Amino acid sequence: MDPLTTWKSVPEVNQMGYEEFVTVFGNVVEHCSLVAAAVWKFRPFKDVRHLHEEICIFIDQLPTAGGEGILRLHPDLAGRAAREATLTSESNREQRAAGLTDLTHEEKMQLTRMNDSYRSKFGFPFVICARRNKKEAIMEGIRSRLKNSPEVELHKGLGEVKKICYLRLLDLVEHEGVESRL
Amino acid sequence: MDPLTTWKSVPEVNQMGYEEFVTVFGNVVEHCSLVAAAVWKFRPFKDVRHLHEEICIFIDQLPTAGGEGILRLHPDLAGRAAREATLTSESNREQRAAGLTDLTHEEKMQLTRMNDSYRSKFGFPFVICARRNKKEAIMEGIRSRLKNSPEVELHKGLGEVKKICYLRLLDLVEHEGVESRL
Repeated sequence: MDPLTTWKSVPEVNQMGYEEFVTVFGNVVEHCSLVAAAVWKFRPFKDVRHLHEEICIFIDQLPTAGGEGILRLHPDLAGRAAREATLTSESNREQRAAGLTDLTHEEKMQLTRMNDSYRSKFGFPFVICARRNKKEAIMEGIRSRLKNSPEVELHKGLGEVKKICYLRLLDLVEHEGVESRL
Repeated sequence: MDPLTTWKSVPEVNQMGYEEFVTVFGNVVEHCSLVAAAVWKFRPFKDVRHLHEEICIFIDQLPTAGGEGILRLHPDLAGRAAREATLTSESNREQRAAGLTDLTHEEKMQLTRMNDSYRSKFGFPFVICARRNKKEAIMEGIRSRLKNSPEVELHKGLGEVKKICYLRLLDLVEHEGVESRL
């Protein structure tokens, strides 16, 4: 679909009831519609950036288990959900854009091993904004982030969640005059 | 399905990776898989009651917007989702058990009006544990709760969410020797 024909204007967003709002924005954080359900109350939003800020504030206010929970709702990169074609359409597009659907057999094995190490060390999956990274940067990212502490990785992972969320919001809401980069 | 054949034992629950855990428990709080994703880290659970306690603690730690968000992920009783057959299987069964699928035309109109008043006053829907109440008690409940303050209703609504959650957990996990009432 052409984004221009499906973008919501900010006034349209501000007039949505919570059910419509959750339907439209329920996956700006992967599988976590609570985020949209929570920030709906902060309308009216000045612009898409303002909406994103409220989402970031909400994420930062969650107890530690909640932040980890957000990460756990994300699929592994080039992982089982990709192989079994059960990715959300957003994730599918993002992983494709990063070149993760064109990995060689060797790269796939390597990424799977690193994903497994990461999950077993941290108890949540490696999350990175795939639209802002190509496969080489992603492979290098997981290799180097594996060395971090759980606290650092929780923080880094949620930082990536916020970037992913911003790009997903830009796909949904008109944003003339708003920076497309954070 | 016969619950006896599908119940998980507590040791089975404690051995689940987070993906399986979220698959099994992702709707014990309606449409809010974050709850399961968050409390997974608190394994091993002693019993189903312990799992429920961790869920309650997590809900209580959410910022106000998060508690309201949880309520907003619930459907109206005998509302649009019921009419359009888009209820989760759990909600469908619960609303049926309370007799909400057998309302007269007049009762439906009355409940719709009260649901609308409730949502417009509080910004979230009226939530009540339908398996613990019959339609008369539900109609009376919404009528009297409409008079409460938003703070009281947030607290009451989340109390009902916790009861619904407990009954859904009992449908999923073996619980010999554990009280079936909270």
